[in-house]
Amino acid sequence: MRILGLDPGSLCTGYAVVETGPKVTYVVSGSIRARGASLADRLQEIFAGVDKLANQYQPDEVAIERVFMHRNADSALKLGQARGAALSATFAVRPRVFEYAPREVKLAVVGTGAAQKEQVQLMVRRLLNLSGPLGADAADALAIALCHAHSRNLDRQLQQLAAGLAQ
Amino acid sequence: MRILGLDPGSLCTGYAVVETGPKVTYVVSGSIRARGASLADRLQEIFAGVDKLANQYQPDEVAIERVFMHRNADSALKLGQARGAALSATFAVRPRVFEYAPREVKLAVVGTGAAQKEQVQLMVRRLLNLSGPLGADAADALAIALCHAHSRNLDRQLQQLAAGLAQ
Repeated sequence: MRILGLDPGSLCTGYAVVETGPKVTYVVSGSIRARGASLADRLQEIFAGVDKLANQYQPDEVAIERVFMHRNADSALKLGQARGAALSATFAVRPRVFEYAPREVKLAVVGTGAAQKEQVQLMVRRLLNLSGPLGADAADALAIALCHAHSRNLDRQLQQLAAGLAQ
Repeated sequence: MRILGLDPGSLCTGYAVVETGPKVTYVVSGSIRARGASLADRLQEIFAGVDKLANQYQPDEVAIERVFMHRNADSALKLGQARGAALSATFAVRPRVFEYAPREVKLAVVGTGAAQKEQVQLMVRRLLNLSGPLGADAADALAIALCHAHSRNLDRQLQQLAAGLAQ
């Protein structure tokens, strides 16, 4: 089962692909920079970048952070546009899309919903045995993908437990 | 030259196709309703709806309303996501995208930037000789498409004038 984690932003969209199994393994991560002069150019860069990833890695499921009340309407609009373009670029491969609250991501990766950004990055590295450089946006996307992988495992274990109890 | 006007919204996205020439002519208009239970489902409905339109009518240019400071961050996020999905769905046919401020649209269609919604709808009907029922979202999308058609004509006339003066 392949998971694509996305952390969209109007200027930089983090992405990460992990493979679930007995253990979650790292496939790829990075970020898509949108440098175009116009809104349409920037959205096209995000769309093209995610479209290429989706086609190349054919994710079964997509995980993205749920956005809560944003401080600022202008930045909420920009973020929304980036999210719309990034998610739209995955539709062609028909994945299921899951949203997680920032607290859920931190809880799943670090063990506390109040974890600092640096703790999340450290745990992402440890959980996936990564040693090379890792950008902040890529790390965020990996954390979201890991959160979803853990949530899936937990769901499966609970189902197995429930099936065992029902016998 | 074919223009696709878009008025995206998280629940309802208005669209309109007009053809420029000696006179602007009506091709089609309507709205795409997003009824899905999840965010991804709703964005997919918007994307699929605009994608189908873009493929069917192959617009050369897309016109969309520019969004200014929104009252509310939550609704700005939702609107942004819808805009991102709607614009992304046009990228496959590689149109040029133009944004117009709401005042510019009203000025182009009614003659005053402070026009009421009803005046805009009335003028859209008159300018395109429409008699049947016309939804509010379709009317808004037609107004944006007309605004762009007029802006293009004005640009062409100014260029011709400048070329004439330069001779």
